[in-house]
Amino acid sequence: MNGPIYNRVALIGLGLIASSMYWAIKRAGVVGEVTGYARSQATRDTARRIGLCDRVCDSAAAAVEGADLVVLCVPVGVMGQVAAEIAPALKPGATVSDVGSVKRAVITAVEPQLPDDVHFVPAHPLAGTEHSGPESGFAELFDNRWCLVVPVNGTAETPIAQLQSFWELLGANVEIMDPDHHDLVLAVTSHTPHLIAYTMVGVADDLRRVTDSEVIKYSAAGFRDFTRIAASDPTMWRDVFLSNKDATLEILGRFTEELFALQRAIRTGDGEHLHEYFTRTRAIRRGIIEAGQDTDAPDFGRAKAKE
Amino acid sequence: MNGPIYNRVALIGLGLIASSMYWAIKRAGVVGEVTGYARSQATRDTARRIGLCDRVCDSAAAAVEGADLVVLCVPVGVMGQVAAEIAPALKPGATVSDVGSVKRAVITAVEPQLPDDVHFVPAHPLAGTEHSGPESGFAELFDNRWCLVVPVNGTAETPIAQLQSFWELLGANVEIMDPDHHDLVLAVTSHTPHLIAYTMVGVADDLRRVTDSEVIKYSAAGFRDFTRIAASDPTMWRDVFLSNKDATLEILGRFTEELFALQRAIRTGDGEHLHEYFTRTRAIRRGIIEAGQDTDAPDFGRAKAKE
Repeated sequence: MNGPIYNRVALIGLGLIASSMYWAIKRAGVVGEVTGYARSQATRDTARRIGLCDRVCDSAAAAVEGADLVVLCVPVGVMGQVAAEIAPALKPGATVSDVGSVKRAVITAVEPQLPDDVHFVPAHPLAGTEHSGPESGFAELFDNRWCLVVPVNGTAETPIAQLQSFWELLGANVEIMDPDHHDLVLAVTSHTPHLIAYTMVGVADDLRRVTDSEVIKYSAAGFRDFTRIAASDPTMWRDVFLSNKDATLEILGRFTEELFALQRAIRTGDGEHLHEYFTRTRAIRRGIIEAGQDTDAPDFGRAKAKE
Repeated sequence: MNGPIYNRVALIGLGLIASSMYWAIKRAGVVGEVTGYARSQATRDTARRIGLCDRVCDSAAAAVEGADLVVLCVPVGVMGQVAAEIAPALKPGATVSDVGSVKRAVITAVEPQLPDDVHFVPAHPLAGTEHSGPESGFAELFDNRWCLVVPVNGTAETPIAQLQSFWELLGANVEIMDPDHHDLVLAVTSHTPHLIAYTMVGVADDLRRVTDSEVIKYSAAGFRDFTRIAASDPTMWRDVFLSNKDATLEILGRFTEELFALQRAIRTGDGEHLHEYFTRTRAIRRGIIEAGQDTDAPDFGRAKAKE
C-alpha cells in the first residue's frame, strides 16, 4: 500500500459493527483518521472513555465533514433519516456506504437523500455476535467472513473497487451481489432462521409446565443454539423483518408448508418420510464443513471454550 | 472407591453414545470388563479394529451374559425388540438401563419384556454431537452434562443409586425425573428445536433461486447453527419423533401459533410487537449464560476452533 486507502473515515452509529470496524481499521493501519458519531450521549461518552474512534463528534454532520468514506452503521429503519441529516455536510466525491442486513430498502431510503456528487456503495458484512453496543466490538470480527458489496446502477468502478479493498484490509472476503438477490439469499441464510429461533425461545418462555430453570438447565440438548441466535439486538432485527418483508414472508411460507408436512408425518407415523427428510439435510451440513465455513470438531469445538 | 462399581457392563448398540461411554468408563477405571454388541457386522468389525470394548460379542445374548449392568444404546424404535432378545440371557439381579431420548415409550416397550429378577432403570444422558457411529465417541462427551435418570414405580433404591454413581463417574451430573415430565421437557429443549432445524435446512435445500453453494457460502449468518443440529442421526431422530409424538405435536402447535403471530406482525408492519418479542427472548439467553450452560465469548468461542 502507498499511504492510507481513505484519508478520513466517518462511522455513523457506534454499535457492534462500527466498533469492530474501528479496531480492524486500527489493526490494518490503512486510514488516516476515523471520526465517529452516535445519537445517544451515553454511547458517545462510552466511546470517548474506551478510545473508540480518533475523534467522537457531537453531530453526524460534524463527523462526516471532510470524510472520504462515510459508513452508516445504524438500524436499517433509520438509514434514510440519517442520510438526510448528513447530506448537506458530505464532501464532494466522498463515498457513502452502510452495513445494513437488508439492501433494497436501504437503497430506496438512502439514495434519494444523497447529493449527486457523492458515490453510494451499499455493503453488508456477514458478521456479528449476539452482543451489541460500543463495547462489544473486536478487531477480528470480519476475519475470513464475507462482505457483500451491493452497488446500485450507474456507480463508477473506482469507488466500488476502493470499498472492496477497504473491506479486504479489514479481513473480509468480498463478493459483489445484486440487491434483490442479496435480500433473498439473506432471507434464507439469516433472516428466517433468526425469526424461527426467536419464536422457539418465545415458546419455551411461555410454557408454564416446563419451568424456566428447566429450559435453561437442559438447554444443551439443542435449544441452546436457538437462544444464542435469539439474543441478538431487538431493534436491528425488528427493522430487518419490516424492511425485508417480502422475501422473509416468502421463505416463511415455504417453511410452514414443509413443517406441516413433517408434523403430519409424525401424527400419522410415517417414519419413511421423516427418515428421508433427515437424511437429505445431512448433505447440506457436509457441504458447509467442506467449504470451510465451520469446524466438525466434536461438540462443535465448544468444549474448550466452556470449561 | 473400593473396587469396580460394576464387575461387567454390556453395551448393546455401538454408536456415538456407547462408544463415548466405553472411553469414559476406561478413563474412570470403574468397571471390570465391558462387553459390546452391534447388530451390523461392519460395526462389530470397526469396534474390534479400534479396540472399542474389552470384548465384542456376535450376539446380544452373549454380550449380556454375566453382566451386572446392561445399557441399551440402540434407537428408541427397536428398544423393545432388543430387550426381548436379551431377556433370557440376563443375569438375575442385573440392572438394565438405556440411553434413549424418549422415556415413556421406552418404558412401555422394554418393561414387559424383562424378567422379574432384573432391575430396569431408564436413563438419558443429554449429550451428543452431530456425528454418529462407533468411531465418533470420545471420553469427554458426558463431562459436566446432565444425565436424567427416570426410574419406574417400584424399583429398589440400590440399583438407582448405583446407576447414578456410575454416570457421575463418567463425568455427568445426574437428576432424577418422572418419565412424562422428561418427555415434555425434552420436547421443548431438544425434540422440537431439532424438527425446526431439519425443516429450515430442508427449505434452503429446496429453494432453486438461491443456489446450494450460496446457502453454504453464507451460512455463517445464522443458518449454520441449524445445519449443525440438522446433521444428527436420521434413524435416531425418526424414532424420537414417532415415540414422543404427543409432546412434540403439542409444542409444535404452540410454535406455529407464535410464528403466525410474528408473521402477521411482519405483514402488517407491527414493529412494536416484534421489538417486544425479541427483547423478551434475550432474557432466556442471559439465564443460560448465568447458569454456566454456555460461553458468552464473542463468536460463541468458535473463532479459535475454526481458524
